[in-house]
Amino acid sequence: MRTVFINGEYLPEDEAKISIFDRGFLFADSIYEVTTVVNGKLVDFTSHMTRLRRSLNELSMPSPADDDTLLTMHRELIKRNKIDQGLVYMQVSRGVADRSFLYPSQETPATLVAFTQVNQVLETPALADGIKVISVEDQRWARRDIKTTQLLYPSMAKMQAKSQGADDAWLIEDGLVTEGTSNNAFIVTAEGTLVTRPLSNDILHGTTRKALLDCAASMQIKFEERAFTLEEAKHAREAFISSASCFAVPVVSIDGTRVGDGKRGPVTARLQEAYRHEQVDSGI
Amino acid sequence: MRTVFINGEYLPEDEAKISIFDRGFLFADSIYEVTTVVNGKLVDFTSHMTRLRRSLNELSMPSPADDDTLLTMHRELIKRNKIDQGLVYMQVSRGVADRSFLYPSQETPATLVAFTQVNQVLETPALADGIKVISVEDQRWARRDIKTTQLLYPSMAKMQAKSQGADDAWLIEDGLVTEGTSNNAFIVTAEGTLVTRPLSNDILHGTTRKALLDCAASMQIKFEERAFTLEEAKHAREAFISSASCFAVPVVSIDGTRVGDGKRGPVTARLQEAYRHEQVDSGI
Repeated sequence: MRTVFINGEYLPEDEAKISIFDRGFLFADSIYEVTTVVNGKLVDFTSHMTRLRRSLNELSMPSPADDDTLLTMHRELIKRNKIDQGLVYMQVSRGVADRSFLYPSQETPATLVAFTQVNQVLETPALADGIKVISVEDQRWARRDIKTTQLLYPSMAKMQAKSQGADDAWLIEDGLVTEGTSNNAFIVTAEGTLVTRPLSNDILHGTTRKALLDCAASMQIKFEERAFTLEEAKHAREAFISSASCFAVPVVSIDGTRVGDGKRGPVTARLQEAYRHEQVDSGI
Repeated sequence: MRTVFINGEYLPEDEAKISIFDRGFLFADSIYEVTTVVNGKLVDFTSHMTRLRRSLNELSMPSPADDDTLLTMHRELIKRNKIDQGLVYMQVSRGVADRSFLYPSQETPATLVAFTQVNQVLETPALADGIKVISVEDQRWARRDIKTTQLLYPSMAKMQAKSQGADDAWLIEDGLVTEGTSNNAFIVTAEGTLVTRPLSNDILHGTTRKALLDCAASMQIKFEERAFTLEEAKHAREAFISSASCFAVPVVSIDGTRVGDGKRGPVTARLQEAYRHEQVDSGI
């Protein structure tokens, strides 16, 4: 049985409970971060903390703890659960209050919850062989830059992908790809240019997206931050998704159309290797 | 201390807890209904059950119990908490499972939670004097017809209204009013026609909206189901919001512009009276 963390306590997972009056449950008034663990170390933890602070700030949500305390808690969960490869999931809600759309007073303590999952992270089949995606309309709210737990639509889209024999979905708004259900979307054009949508409220500000663009810059891979259409993606030389938990996974098929030669492309492979070197091997 | 209901048990509210692995907490994979209580009786309960079934169906979510069982549970909560005027809040989530965007198996039991609140319902100041609203962009997801707990944006909009000295917000999409943050929006034109947005995925299918249109029909008040602009609303003769908990509350100001003569209008007053007679006085 896992040991999980709730508001300062380490508890067996079957005792891990929150009030039904928690605003995370009643209003999805709640944000989260998922940090990947490799060799028992946290990958790119600082970027996750930066984004957590940004989410808290955008929602005027009180901070549950400082970064050092959160780092210590993450490490304790890794140790107690003997995580070699996997993740630490952390969620912060605006706390417990009788139900009202209005926020409770700023003195209301935030709820802080965290738990681990064991996952294969390195050398997964998906990293080598890629995944198939379908396209679905992007029906999420307008503030996808805030990493909230309003995740029902991504969940529905993944179920739709599964029912159609695919692995994931790319979300389309006004004919343009916004991102994947829980990852950012990249393509490589016929000219070899790496393309991904620029940061805005339309997409999650992916920690791995940023790290991969840094890798591209240092490897002198030409890249453009611009939106691209579904058609452009289908005719791209390569396509891939990025996320903290999957790194950079090739997309080899979109709506049944083979992307490039249907295999992991060379730019994707180089970025995987660079990310592994730059981020994964320098976990803390 | 209140007695609340969780998965078959009646418990003191401070023991009312759910797992942190509940999908309502992790994914906002959760729906709800709020039924008003007057004189200890449930107002328009059947409409709430109809909508609950629709929400469950749209999300392929298992049913937590049949309508009779839910009615018995509502009545038991009213009795144990001695509710004369107030509400019963009921929430259903897809249940507890280790975190994955993919739904757990259909055999996973739904989580069913309910609690009461005491509120003045009849003869509130708002029913007589009305409220002020501001307009804000509608940034919610595209399936507002499903009554999910993805309520962060309505919560943010109510906070914004409060910070501007108003009571609530009307949500605007493509220049047209969709609805209020937790209520449907109506206007009465200079010609005396009642106007409200037609049912679609863009708005909640309000139980009180439906009941008020039935009242209008039986009173031979002319009505149109069509979208209207913010400008049209500001220049309307009357405006009001409807919800199960507020019935029909006049909107006397929109973005600081007085609506009509800034008082409850005659059509609104007639509809309040009819609704009181048709629905409130026939609670079960």
